[in-house]
Amino acid sequence: MRISELSRRSGVPVASIKYYLREGLLPAGRAMGATLAEYGEEHVQRLRLIRALTTLGGLSIAAAREVLAEIDQPHDPLAMLGVIHYALRTPADATEATGDGELTERVDGLVDAMEWDISEASPHRRALAASLQELGRLGVDFGVDDLLPYARLAAAVARLDLDQLDGIEDRMVLAERAAILTLLLEPVLALLRRLAQEGESRRRTGAAAAPDTAY
Amino acid sequence: MRISELSRRSGVPVASIKYYLREGLLPAGRAMGATLAEYGEEHVQRLRLIRALTTLGGLSIAAAREVLAEIDQPHDPLAMLGVIHYALRTPADATEATGDGELTERVDGLVDAMEWDISEASPHRRALAASLQELGRLGVDFGVDDLLPYARLAAAVARLDLDQLDGIEDRMVLAERAAILTLLLEPVLALLRRLAQEGESRRRTGAAAAPDTAY
Repeated sequence: MRISELSRRSGVPVASIKYYLREGLLPAGRAMGATLAEYGEEHVQRLRLIRALTTLGGLSIAAAREVLAEIDQPHDPLAMLGVIHYALRTPADATEATGDGELTERVDGLVDAMEWDISEASPHRRALAASLQELGRLGVDFGVDDLLPYARLAAAVARLDLDQLDGIEDRMVLAERAAILTLLLEPVLALLRRLAQEGESRRRTGAAAAPDTAY
Repeated sequence: MRISELSRRSGVPVASIKYYLREGLLPAGRAMGATLAEYGEEHVQRLRLIRALTTLGGLSIAAAREVLAEIDQPHDPLAMLGVIHYALRTPADATEATGDGELTERVDGLVDAMEWDISEASPHRRALAASLQELGRLGVDFGVDDLLPYARLAAAVARLDLDQLDGIEDRMVLAERAAILTLLLEPVLALLRRLAQEGESRRRTGAAAAPDTAY
């Protein structure tokens, strides 16, 4: 297909496609003349992955290029998904060092109690410590015992997540799906919690929802 | 206490306290002279709630004033929590009308299947429809049957959340705690999911974490 068709199929503007080509994120098409190139399905899929990483995942072009380079290596799928998993923007700022050893120990204690095998390099460890620090600043101190019941439910959520990736053979499709599910299910899960909070509040108080007003 | 002590105790700068006084969010202290006023514990608690609503909750001063006015009414605690719950920023933009009746029906179907009693006015219904639309645009179509197992886990999370509010009698404390838990546990839960995803990925593949490298 020509670049116009590639744009239509992927939903990515022609100018952006040319930019990704120049920046080396998207491999060149098959040359059909001095200014014409032919693109294939792998380009469509690659563009979807680039958009998932940059637009959704918050990666810079340079960071996306590095992640794509890793994906192009013949690593096993776990290693590939790991690179993506750590590169995506985290729900809290992981760069803010808490400088609080007790919080780091609390996260370690939780990971141990859950028997999760988590790399020491995980940005999610630091981001969780930072989130717990923020809670503590506001007077809500969540210890390992408070976190454990939530962690068990998170483990059940993760099992559902991993089930969604079962049986996907194509590396690009797998990478894109993992990025989309990790990121885009976050607001879905948070909203399901909000809805469940209202349902549970009303169940506990025995009150019925007024049909047209807030609560 | 004087305003300087109120600032120290609440962690809110004096200039902000004066602003909240002028804007009618914080009741005046007891006049002790032409320019002196005495503040009490209720002012400390009120300031904490104002910060939870504005800084964390994303409410404008005008919106916070409306919410605080509702909290000052002798409504029952459920109605009070409802006002806060609907006013807090949502995890996805609820203002973007999906204009897609099928998505609204999907959310309705899920709420019915979960037997949740949710007001028709809930912003979380619209935000969930918008989030599902975004997923669909990226080729991931989540129907009611896909959402149900996640919704059941969200219900279990909500039960834990409501347990945290059990036995809090003071209205201001209850309002502040509800806002903080609703908002600040969102990144915590999302990060527990990320950690659990890594643990579960590694469990399924039987690989061990390298101690100092990504995955």
